[in-house]
Amino acid sequence: MSFNIPRGTQDILPGESERWQYVEQIARDTCAAFQYKEIRTPIFEHTELFARGVGESTDIVQKEMYTFEDKKGRSITLRPEGTASTVRSYVENKLFAQPTQPTKLYYIGPMFRYERPQTGRYRQFYQFGIEAIGSKDPAIDAEVISLAMSVYEKAGLSNLKLVINSLGDKESRADYRQALVEHFEPRMDEFCHDCQIRLHQNPLRILDCKKDRDHELMATAPSIQDFLNEESRTYFEKVKQYLTDLGIEYVVDPNLVRGLDYYNHTAFEIMSNAEGFGAITTLAGGGRYDGLVEGIGGPESPGIGFAMSIERFLSAIDAEKIELPVQGGIDLYIAALGDQAKDYAVSLLNRLRKEGISSEMDYTGKKLKAQFKAADRLKAKFIAVLGEDELAQQIVNVKDTTTGEQIEVKLDELIQMMKAHQKA
Amino acid sequence: MSFNIPRGTQDILPGESERWQYVEQIARDTCAAFQYKEIRTPIFEHTELFARGVGESTDIVQKEMYTFEDKKGRSITLRPEGTASTVRSYVENKLFAQPTQPTKLYYIGPMFRYERPQTGRYRQFYQFGIEAIGSKDPAIDAEVISLAMSVYEKAGLSNLKLVINSLGDKESRADYRQALVEHFEPRMDEFCHDCQIRLHQNPLRILDCKKDRDHELMATAPSIQDFLNEESRTYFEKVKQYLTDLGIEYVVDPNLVRGLDYYNHTAFEIMSNAEGFGAITTLAGGGRYDGLVEGIGGPESPGIGFAMSIERFLSAIDAEKIELPVQGGIDLYIAALGDQAKDYAVSLLNRLRKEGISSEMDYTGKKLKAQFKAADRLKAKFIAVLGEDELAQQIVNVKDTTTGEQIEVKLDELIQMMKAHQKA
Repeated sequence: MSFNIPRGTQDILPGESERWQYVEQIARDTCAAFQYKEIRTPIFEHTELFARGVGESTDIVQKEMYTFEDKKGRSITLRPEGTASTVRSYVENKLFAQPTQPTKLYYIGPMFRYERPQTGRYRQFYQFGIEAIGSKDPAIDAEVISLAMSVYEKAGLSNLKLVINSLGDKESRADYRQALVEHFEPRMDEFCHDCQIRLHQNPLRILDCKKDRDHELMATAPSIQDFLNEESRTYFEKVKQYLTDLGIEYVVDPNLVRGLDYYNHTAFEIMSNAEGFGAITTLAGGGRYDGLVEGIGGPESPGIGFAMSIERFLSAIDAEKIELPVQGGIDLYIAALGDQAKDYAVSLLNRLRKEGISSEMDYTGKKLKAQFKAADRLKAKFIAVLGEDELAQQIVNVKDTTTGEQIEVKLDELIQMMKAHQKA
Repeated sequence: MSFNIPRGTQDILPGESERWQYVEQIARDTCAAFQYKEIRTPIFEHTELFARGVGESTDIVQKEMYTFEDKKGRSITLRPEGTASTVRSYVENKLFAQPTQPTKLYYIGPMFRYERPQTGRYRQFYQFGIEAIGSKDPAIDAEVISLAMSVYEKAGLSNLKLVINSLGDKESRADYRQALVEHFEPRMDEFCHDCQIRLHQNPLRILDCKKDRDHELMATAPSIQDFLNEESRTYFEKVKQYLTDLGIEYVVDPNLVRGLDYYNHTAFEIMSNAEGFGAITTLAGGGRYDGLVEGIGGPESPGIGFAMSIERFLSAIDAEKIELPVQGGIDLYIAALGDQAKDYAVSLLNRLRKEGISSEMDYTGKKLKAQFKAADRLKAKFIAVLGEDELAQQIVNVKDTTTGEQIEVKLDELIQMMKAHQKA
């Protein structure tokens, strides 16, 4: 009998997992500099949270959720994204009452959507995301965008394109929705079933439709930019000014509406322009969601955030042919000859490791030559050879694999020597 | 409408999440020294994997799994532990065919068991665990135990108790099972329903029963130690010798059988002896599972590993009153006065952060005095005050909050100054 991984999921194995750790560490370090703190919410939530927090009209809620009943019959859903859970936690734990505001949070972890698996799209995928809740200052919008760009830049990405838009405030959006309905309604029968539902639920999402993207009414649809009221326009201008001040290039795309229902004002996406990156070019997306906190039971608290896919981040790194500095070899391999030497090596190795020296030996009864080969495979910087003779003399022969140089070291000085080399 | 976290789960919030990061980093660093590499398997697997890999007779499989059907009617289960998934991945990805053996893996992440929530016991909980697959060398058993102990010691824990046992090989276990059946069977009607089922499924687990622990037959039950054959005894002796060589103290407890079905030879648990730690004292448990890899479709590959609870690790740290070094303040707070100074501060802050200097400013329209208070709350090492005058002169007033010293710094030298302080 054999067992397979569930469809649409993946194992991240050694060789690959180091790259994940590397980009996640960049994200964590950047969050430290920008003063975002980690929050960890559960992998699943009550289903109603996502219905409310992500939006009833979204594909996510309508088609893509992993929903099930627990043993008590409660409807539970594996989180399809991170914002709803973060906001739920913000409200439930009364983070709005803490003295330091806005509340700046980040999360890294798996999310789940039941989609058709395809290259670069998994049913379990990882997202890094941030949320800044409790400030409606355009400087925070710029900060959130800058943090995302900084993470990518630190990893060495340079072919990036930032697209921004304003969806305006409630009033502007209402006017714009009305205009969209009037624009599309007369010929709605030429659109797909999903769009027909969207027309009155959330007509902005028609602009996002992949099936109808070439319909002639798409190109002539009214632009949100023409419906922004004074306040919304001023806000957007200030966001753009800050981006310019921060040296961040951007393109305004009036058709950028984002898939989720709750966005308003600033919306943005970061894409990769790298050659050969393929069809999926969006690396991260985010926006402002004033009103969401109230929607899930909290006090009025404006918020903004983004989520980035770790999988696509790594694909973009590959597309730009960037070698992440993750493949270091081990510090020391101990090759032992004979039972006594092996037993001694076990203790010695343990002492080395407890000092933080990455080191290895053989546990499979290999001959000396095969042990050297293993050391080579592990890219050992040093190889120590220990036989019965050396043990009797309390010495060890240490070879520097870079220079080929070989020296005799007293056993009780080996750790000291290795620590000195580690620092150098 | 308000939304609550699912019962038995928890949010890990800023203030607490730093402690999680800290102990997880210790685990990762220790794995680097001991040459264990990270593997990430999916959060859910096909249900049959756990039925086979954890054991049909276990409480986990019989009562505690989060099992549901996906949209295609496949039975899916949120992983209740990490070993079955890791071994599934080892087999499916043919890691046994890689040149470096044994395959040494670690994982950190959430696990799920539907149990009655109680203090320190969650339905979603975090485990760090390792698996060494492909070697049946007693030195690997000692290495695995040493790694667990090293992680705890690095965090500063000192009230630790290591308990070990040998469950013997197949032959020894068969003899022992037979003896247990003979011992308990005549009076089995005095035992709980679960134990009556265990009698023929897995009689070793009767010794684990919490309901019947005081029954007189428990104290007089035969000991596995008396049924170890020559090979099993020799193996156990060697493990104990290595532990002694490594300076690791241990106690042999012949009743330590572990809850999972697949253990053989070495089994161990690490407990906290700290005062006030409460009823749940087991921090980590593990053992050898030769036969498991074959059981889920792989070639004969002996294995050993452990899993430790992150929640209990942190509780033990609290019980020993250890302060983890995680509450550092930020490097710099910029207090800005007036619109122009604020706009400049936004850019300046961004440049500082991109250099890795953790820094903050106000986004909520605070007056100067309130900004100083915010800086204090964030434990800022330096506060820079920037008003219209300073901006005109391209300077900034910087206060060292430790010494109270105040100096004027040219705006274009601030980053350099902060970097110098960061290094010092």
